Amino acid sequence: MPELRYDPIQKRWTIIASEQGRRPDDFPIKNEPPREGFCPFCEGNEGKTPPEIAAVRANGSGPNQPGWQVRVVPNKFPALRIEGNMDRKGIGVYDLMNGVGAHEVIIETPQHNLNLADARVEHIEQVIRMYRQRLVDLLRDRRFKYILIFRNYGAAAGALLSHPHTQIIASPVTPLILVRELTSAKQHYMQKERCLFCDVIQQEIESGERIVVATEEFVALTPFASRFPFEIFIAPRSHHHSFAEISDHMIRRLAVVLKEVLLRSKKCLNDPAYNFLIHTIPNVKASPRRRNYWDTIEVDFHWHIEFMPRLTRIAGFEWATGFYINPTAPEEAAKYLRDVAL
Amino acid sequence: MPELRYDPIQKRWTIIASEQGRRPDDFPIKNEPPREGFCPFCEGNEGKTPPEIAAVRANGSGPNQPGWQVRVVPNKFPALRIEGNMDRKGIGVYDLMNGVGAHEVIIETPQHNLNLADARVEHIEQVIRMYRQRLVDLLRDRRFKYILIFRNYGAAAGALLSHPHTQIIASPVTPLILVRELTSAKQHYMQKERCLFCDVIQQEIESGERIVVATEEFVALTPFASRFPFEIFIAPRSHHHSFAEISDHMIRRLAVVLKEVLLRSKKCLNDPAYNFLIHTIPNVKASPRRRNYWDTIEVDFHWHIEFMPRLTRIAGFEWATGFYINPTAPEEAAKYLRDVAL
Repeated sequence: MPELRYDPIQKRWTIIASEQGRRPDDFPIKNEPPREGFCPFCEGNEGKTPPEIAAVRANGSGPNQPGWQVRVVPNKFPALRIEGNMDRKGIGVYDLMNGVGAHEVIIETPQHNLNLADARVEHIEQVIRMYRQRLVDLLRDRRFKYILIFRNYGAAAGALLSHPHTQIIASPVTPLILVRELTSAKQHYMQKERCLFCDVIQQEIESGERIVVATEEFVALTPFASRFPFEIFIAPRSHHHSFAEISDHMIRRLAVVLKEVLLRSKKCLNDPAYNFLIHTIPNVKASPRRRNYWDTIEVDFHWHIEFMPRLTRIAGFEWATGFYINPTAPEEAAKYLRDVAL
Repeated sequence: MPELRYDPIQKRWTIIASEQGRRPDDFPIKNEPPREGFCPFCEGNEGKTPPEIAAVRANGSGPNQPGWQVRVVPNKFPALRIEGNMDRKGIGVYDLMNGVGAHEVIIETPQHNLNLADARVEHIEQVIRMYRQRLVDLLRDRRFKYILIFRNYGAAAGALLSHPHTQIIASPVTPLILVRELTSAKQHYMQKERCLFCDVIQQEIESGERIVVATEEFVALTPFASRFPFEIFIAPRSHHHSFAEISDHMIRRLAVVLKEVLLRSKKCLNDPAYNFLIHTIPNVKASPRRRNYWDTIEVDFHWHIEFMPRLTRIAGFEWATGFYINPTAPEEAAKYLRDVAL
């Protein structure tokens, strides 16, 4: 019998069609690299990107020169533009504003063919430190209500270049899915004076059946109502609301867990295309501030990472309803991921 | 400058990155048929599907025999199952119920290679009449809160078989996206005593710039805040809340408009993969009834069809936020669709 499972964070039902019992080698989408051509992200091609915003350079090399380990540049084809004002206005029943924001690319390594799953932990640590650095910097701009860090790997995940990179988009509105997560968490806290995410993590650690990796500081698990097969949720075990405030120690520990998640998925699912993304709190200093709404954000929200391998296609049912059919039970997925030889 | 546009129905922002100005022949996804093999939907193979639920048979042929024009069967690999009770229960912070529901396939024609865009209007009319018939029948089951009719065409749209077919899923919960649409419409009606959809349609007809097809009874347009390039919204121009109550006359008129939309998209976008789906009211007779909530449903809601060609890939940003980047302005898309030679 299929099951309907409810995700208390996203307030969303999923159909777990475990009778289909799709195994790791049983999915329609195979990972293909994006079309290759000239790579503007490779060392030596610094002049082909807009001027760099930040970089990790160990050897005293100058900006926009070779010699970097991690490099941040504006996206050459940005979804949102840094200059100007929002100029919100109504047109009859509609609302409209200028596409003001930021769109940056974190080039994670000079090595074109490095798979992040195979990078050294110290290198992943440097990349995550750069996530924090750019997030902290962008939060200073009061026009930006939400800053999203996300990674597309493989053509099926929407990556246009294969050189390892992460993107950051700073948006002048708080997106729908974040509002939903924040609202669920706030309602839970008002009722119980406990963090919804902490409750979920606690229950998952007690049950154990959906745990992929657990360390002293972090947990990686397949969500109870996973929309996608082999989806993984990563979060600090203790309550932390803001990724911008992550400590160096926690970054080091996160790099270990992230590497293990990437490596287990790579081995288990034949190097799948994937998206991962960080959900942290909105910019509480954005203007105009929704004061009452954000006043308890420190206790309400719990930052986390969502990792979604792209193995199945989304069809009419999902587009129509926001209600997903997942052909692999999350408990089975966790077991495959735990059992794979590294 | 990119624009941020707000959809008052879905309460969702979209980035219209019109600088990218993607034209009809400019998209990464090309339509490919699903993998071909033995086709259980072809005439003569009636024994390979579960026994038929309904059919259009002009010549007095018996059930599960050749001689049909349209045939409805249970899905052999259903996402939800017809037998049993929901048995809702909680597991700590989670909710769980049995996957009770219905999952049917409407085989639209005995002709394996018929493109619905090329079908005769009278045939499309028969198919739509069968949509109504199955919807009316499934609404009698008080376990089903929502009944969704949707069509996947092409592998990129999630179709597994290429023989023309539509699917129906009856669900024991009202899906997220429908709750959102219903809530927006209800709030609008409470404020203005007008239907939100009627207001949108009125404004679009007055402006004209996003209209693809307009007849006396129907309008097809590219939504102001379209998530996807060349997305099309089709609705009756006057207020109708329930697709189950559509008249024979209106079905005939809808068949004309649907054929024109399919044909314009086929010609303009090189026969793209697509999903289309019908959004109608929930089952107001479902048990337990949310009485206060549905009491004004007749004035709140307006049934419609969403048509979404699958031309672009969804990446981390969209998955993280529910906030889409559309590289083609809807006004441009409407113009291409209007101007294509039929």
